[in-house]
Amino acid sequence: MAEQVGTNLTWHDGNVTREERQACLQQKGATLWFTGLSASGKSTIAVALEQVLVQRGHASYRLDGDNVRMGLNKNLGFSAEDRTENIRRIGEVCKLFADSGVITLSSFISPYVADRDAVRALHDEDGLDFIEVYVQVPLEVAEERDPKGLYKKARAGEIKGFTGIDDPYEEPSKAEIILPTHELSIEESVIKLLDELESRGLLTS
Amino acid sequence: MAEQVGTNLTWHDGNVTREERQACLQQKGATLWFTGLSASGKSTIAVALEQVLVQRGHASYRLDGDNVRMGLNKNLGFSAEDRTENIRRIGEVCKLFADSGVITLSSFISPYVADRDAVRALHDEDGLDFIEVYVQVPLEVAEERDPKGLYKKARAGEIKGFTGIDDPYEEPSKAEIILPTHELSIEESVIKLLDELESRGLLTS
Repeated sequence: MAEQVGTNLTWHDGNVTREERQACLQQKGATLWFTGLSASGKSTIAVALEQVLVQRGHASYRLDGDNVRMGLNKNLGFSAEDRTENIRRIGEVCKLFADSGVITLSSFISPYVADRDAVRALHDEDGLDFIEVYVQVPLEVAEERDPKGLYKKARAGEIKGFTGIDDPYEEPSKAEIILPTHELSIEESVIKLLDELESRGLLTS
Repeated sequence: MAEQVGTNLTWHDGNVTREERQACLQQKGATLWFTGLSASGKSTIAVALEQVLVQRGHASYRLDGDNVRMGLNKNLGFSAEDRTENIRRIGEVCKLFADSGVITLSSFISPYVADRDAVRALHDEDGLDFIEVYVQVPLEVAEERDPKGLYKKARAGEIKGFTGIDDPYEEPSKAEIILPTHELSIEESVIKLLDELESRGLLTS
């Protein structure tokens, strides 16, 4: 159905396909969903992986509290309903990015199995890779790190509903990757993730 | 602040910068915001532009009713409040895509000046290019085209609050590009858009 118009402008009927975008970017889009306690190391590892991917010429983007909570989800609070809607929207945006061909890194505590599984289902239904990455540390380790003093505040009752203290973290039972960051270096974690991306054929079109 | 770790994995402190993503993709991200009446030709032109960009190796992605209304915005209806929230969320997603380095095409009627200007402001505040593309046809032309029979239903009162019939379309007063699709061919429209992208230096890093 190719239609030739003018000098060097051509297009075909219908939309650009996912395969055409993959060929353009020489990679396949996917979502790596980092989940784990506050201070488990999710963002540290996601940032390192993003840097390595971009250095190697891969289109990659990271969604985290900084660029989502103050923007798309600024009208959401911390009620159970709003927390679910927060993850739902992030999951939908991940799906759009993955569909666009970008290797998308999502870094949120996302403590509930049902919310994470809903995002997984969104990707599955649309034939997009969803890789759940459980950044796993014992609560004691996260609480010892406590870089922002949030656990201390939660223990003092100054923050309510804090994951791991007075709100549950539901561990993944089918995470594709588990990264115990109290035992692995950042580099070892990044290598595990790169291996997963390569073994799935995501880093070539 | 470069930190060398292991064989060939390196990263620096802090996040991947927008400039690093631009260098990786050899282009700059931006949002082209197509606005206009139903049947004005927004999606036709956006699809053609997306195809040409992808053929030329540019990371590009199109947001439209198909991938947004059934996903991210499926919990929104058509009240005035929900219409504003619809455009707000799309604008925030465009901003994320533009920040990621992708040339982002948004194709929605988006009839209200205030909603479009809010999206423009989001981009301006963050130093991202926002290009408003007014796909302009007289209402009579759009109504004559009526590929989905929507104007006919609106005239018959079967659809309420239809833009151009019983809900206003507020024309852009500062659109960067105006495309009168009853006078321009698709190719002429695409060339105007490519010229704008090139003149802004968006197609090189």
